[in-house]
Amino acid sequence: MTMLRVHNLAVSLDGFATGEGLTFDAPFGHAGGRLMQWFFPTRAFVAMSGHDGESVGAGTRGVDDSFAAATSVGIGAEIMGRGKFGPQTGPWTDDGWRGWWGEEPPFHSPVVVLTHHPREDLAVGETTFLFRDLSPRDALDLAIEQAGGLDVRLGGGPTVVREFLAADLVDHLHVVVTPILLGRGVRVWDGLEGLEERFDVETTASPSGVVHYVFTRKPR
Amino acid sequence: MTMLRVHNLAVSLDGFATGEGLTFDAPFGHAGGRLMQWFFPTRAFVAMSGHDGESVGAGTRGVDDSFAAATSVGIGAEIMGRGKFGPQTGPWTDDGWRGWWGEEPPFHSPVVVLTHHPREDLAVGETTFLFRDLSPRDALDLAIEQAGGLDVRLGGGPTVVREFLAADLVDHLHVVVTPILLGRGVRVWDGLEGLEERFDVETTASPSGVVHYVFTRKPR
Repeated sequence: MTMLRVHNLAVSLDGFATGEGLTFDAPFGHAGGRLMQWFFPTRAFVAMSGHDGESVGAGTRGVDDSFAAATSVGIGAEIMGRGKFGPQTGPWTDDGWRGWWGEEPPFHSPVVVLTHHPREDLAVGETTFLFRDLSPRDALDLAIEQAGGLDVRLGGGPTVVREFLAADLVDHLHVVVTPILLGRGVRVWDGLEGLEERFDVETTASPSGVVHYVFTRKPR
Repeated sequence: MTMLRVHNLAVSLDGFATGEGLTFDAPFGHAGGRLMQWFFPTRAFVAMSGHDGESVGAGTRGVDDSFAAATSVGIGAEIMGRGKFGPQTGPWTDDGWRGWWGEEPPFHSPVVVLTHHPREDLAVGETTFLFRDLSPRDALDLAIEQAGGLDVRLGGGPTVVREFLAADLVDHLHVVVTPILLGRGVRVWDGLEGLEERFDVETTASPSGVVHYVFTRKPR
């Protein structure tokens, strides 16, 4: 049974998953890197970002890394919002944009990019981006088809995650609450009153100061 | 050095410290008792509410109780908003209202009740309520004067806590995050962007599912 999984959704204590004033140079706006500080030291991130060349196995291996490492296990496809693929909005004016990730994006699988402005599929390294204008349900069906029997990851951003949660399509939701108050930005939790009734919730505090919440969908 | 302390401020994962639709019968509105479920089984609450007559020492003694028990230690006075004292708003029409707590309120100390409608001081058991129209700074000065060298507790509700945090008067802030989404109600964190910069923050997950945050004011 294919699951739809969200991993590493970083949220401030006041419920913002990204800041205000997103630009090319500041993809999290005024939040900067603060929501992901727990992530950067982990072995999983160091390995993913290819910075461990001189030091094999560099990075922490504690609870933060354990959660980070689970991100890629058993995933056959990803769904993301267009805002995660690039900073542009409206009709595509620059088909030369190939995402933030260089010539070998960390997905290594098909990625369904949700956009009201479809364009040609784009292969970059082992990743193929499929730009589609689809409802959450239809996007999930396409991603399942692409995933070859493995799970599908819902990669964000927060607005996309919120839409899929509202449509009750998410089976596994991993949220990381960082003890900072952003004050403004994009809220994750709006319109999801009573969400916890559909999930079992497990809570783990990390020595790094963040709290990991795992929401596991109850059997339907 | 007298400290101003907040204890047991219960907040939903989406940042609401009370629900919508507060009434006499539903002081937390649609939140009901859900924000305080962690508190009711503790030895501290059982003892405070006088329900342990037949079973001395009843109640849990884990981490939730440890935090709950700290609430009263070394406190000489409390400050609360009028909404915590009673459900009325506007000019007092019923001086017969003596609070929610019966003939022996759990404060056993002077309590400064912040209201735009002062009335006569009111003694109930060992507690004296002082109804005053004061700024946060002036309310704190009065409470310090009343506290006889002990600390002052800021008892809520959330709007009052927010005002004192904004005025940078709080030394100790204990927040309990419950993994539910209320969706609506009174937000605690609004207007407090960057609060964490003024505090050291410690995080503890309880087996009950709540997370205790302790904010300790950095030396000025």
